Amino acid sequence: MVIGLMGFGTIGAGVYELAKELEELSIKYVLDIRQVEIPELTHRAEDLFEDAEVDTVVEVMGGLHPAYEFVSAALKAGKNVVTANKYLVATYYDELLALAKANGVAFRCTAAVGGGIGWLTALERVRRIEPINAVEGIMNGTTNYILSNMTQNGLSFDTALSEAQALGYAEADPSADIDGLDVKHKLLLSANIAFDVSLNVNDIFTAGIRSITDGDIKNFKERGLVCKLLGVACKEEGKVAAFVQPNLFPADALTASVPTNFNLITYDTAYTGRMSFYGQGAGRYPTGANVVQDLLDIVGGKEEFYSKEGAPCAIANEIVSFQYYLRTTSAKKDAVKAETWGDAVLTQKMSVAEMAKLLEEIKQEDPRAFIAAVRS
Amino acid sequence: MVIGLMGFGTIGAGVYELAKELEELSIKYVLDIRQVEIPELTHRAEDLFEDAEVDTVVEVMGGLHPAYEFVSAALKAGKNVVTANKYLVATYYDELLALAKANGVAFRCTAAVGGGIGWLTALERVRRIEPINAVEGIMNGTTNYILSNMTQNGLSFDTALSEAQALGYAEADPSADIDGLDVKHKLLLSANIAFDVSLNVNDIFTAGIRSITDGDIKNFKERGLVCKLLGVACKEEGKVAAFVQPNLFPADALTASVPTNFNLITYDTAYTGRMSFYGQGAGRYPTGANVVQDLLDIVGGKEEFYSKEGAPCAIANEIVSFQYYLRTTSAKKDAVKAETWGDAVLTQKMSVAEMAKLLEEIKQEDPRAFIAAVRS
Repeated sequence: MVIGLMGFGTIGAGVYELAKELEELSIKYVLDIRQVEIPELTHRAEDLFEDAEVDTVVEVMGGLHPAYEFVSAALKAGKNVVTANKYLVATYYDELLALAKANGVAFRCTAAVGGGIGWLTALERVRRIEPINAVEGIMNGTTNYILSNMTQNGLSFDTALSEAQALGYAEADPSADIDGLDVKHKLLLSANIAFDVSLNVNDIFTAGIRSITDGDIKNFKERGLVCKLLGVACKEEGKVAAFVQPNLFPADALTASVPTNFNLITYDTAYTGRMSFYGQGAGRYPTGANVVQDLLDIVGGKEEFYSKEGAPCAIANEIVSFQYYLRTTSAKKDAVKAETWGDAVLTQKMSVAEMAKLLEEIKQEDPRAFIAAVRS
Repeated sequence: MVIGLMGFGTIGAGVYELAKELEELSIKYVLDIRQVEIPELTHRAEDLFEDAEVDTVVEVMGGLHPAYEFVSAALKAGKNVVTANKYLVATYYDELLALAKANGVAFRCTAAVGGGIGWLTALERVRRIEPINAVEGIMNGTTNYILSNMTQNGLSFDTALSEAQALGYAEADPSADIDGLDVKHKLLLSANIAFDVSLNVNDIFTAGIRSITDGDIKNFKERGLVCKLLGVACKEEGKVAAFVQPNLFPADALTASVPTNFNLITYDTAYTGRMSFYGQGAGRYPTGANVVQDLLDIVGGKEEFYSKEGAPCAIANEIVSFQYYLRTTSAKKDAVKAETWGDAVLTQKMSVAEMAKLLEEIKQEDPRAFIAAVRS
């Protein structure tokens, strides 16, 4: 396989290093705007698309542009594409899949969800013989690091976030992590592949952890609960629900035990039941390793995408219900209250769609309101 | 693929049912000594080996004989073999691998370790690009069920075992589970594939949970510890250690949270780090599903075994050390004591090889002695 590598940042350098050790893989070009001291460097993207010897393009630049333009050009030029860019694939899902299909090339993005966890490949494998009922999990290491640190060391949100930034887990602008947008993109890819659909990423209800307080954590601890941010998608009678929200688990639950920046992602299938994958969700080598695994899968004969049809499918969040922890100064909480939990309430059981609507209303009055679904 | 299925018990019926739904797989014969009402039934094993149309034989009879004779005959007849029988593969490892290689056929046994967890396939995948440092995990659902039940519900060992038997998790003769023999076979396959070696199964130090008491559990609980039976193998500077023993984990560790009859199996690699797989370790559909996945992998072009060389390798249990919980009436415990823990001691740090020797001596005096390694 002759490869054009686009991006020589943290992940790109990892891919470069790992691929160099394998006979099957040969990197001919590395595209980067910076001046790096490697013989394969080019500043012209066209080099990769126009060279007939290049059969596969790896995109690890990140961001939407020019990644979108470059990946589209690569597919149109008949190159296989491997990317770790969940934002790109989630945003242009239908278009990129159609391009790959039309040009008869492989399009793989295993490293886009779960970093070093071969999650999307595992979904593809289990789907060969089993219908998948649900996918869910801790898909973002930064927020798990913040929540773990608040729970175990009693830190405030701001202090825990600063520590995560100091360690390089969180970006200077942490919005994509703490508002759940990163999880939303990963959930979209997981659900689309699990159920062979194409969901609209903007319809995924997404509540993050930006407004969680040490008072909330204290409230949870007193009840033996641990807070974790999860993406969840499930299918019932042909309807698909998909949402990102904080969840409260009993302290002895497996999900509650996931430490620091680790991920734990689960599928639930018709025959095998629940199967969970636990590993490093990010970083040079975990992510780079899964990009290289995708390359080896293509060398081994894998073609096309993880799923076949990807038919558009509306999101039906009315099919799943929880009792919610709801902390807000808004009087709207009284109408849904089942119990008082300190300065918050435990709501009656309500659907995710109902909570999405209620939270939107409440945020008009109280932008710092916080919710978490109670899980068993 | 045209299949001869040997064994129509719990797993065999699951394989039959799942395979029937897939176009790629066609079952021509089902070998069973019983009279079952299916058109493919035969009582003659030769039917499977002599029929040139059969390209693949599935062995889910269990036990060593006649499984060994039948699998050998199938390989010699040039059939691919898929089996879920860890006892068989662990016992005749070198011989069966050589037969498969000599006859140029595929030999797969993913369901032999971890039931529904695609563990051996995951090892094969990660090994393509990463050296593996260690494999370890909860590989036996029966003993995990017993230990969880003792810890959470305060049951005695005998009561917990009886419950496991009543639920069908444990056999009438539970020795293979509670003495760690089942884990030993699974560990051997995991280590052999992870490190591409052939260990001698009899050299794996194996301490089970037969003699654990509710007093031991109370002792652990008072110190915030949870007991789990693990198989562990690791490699350092070319030396391989492999052992099965009870371990004590802090209550908030991921391994401590594994409930009922679930498995949690982990590899630790050079680049990806720790990656754990959590799922149902046994049962008709989990195990049957992985047998069928093996068949699809062969249809998709997988050949040979998970690893290449399998060179003989001595076990070097002196390279790994722990502090041990040691509960015994023998005065020998005083010589290794670091602390007193109730009626037991916490030993000084000692190698697994040293503990193996000490425990053998102690068991002469006190057959009910119990050990557990303290883990962080």
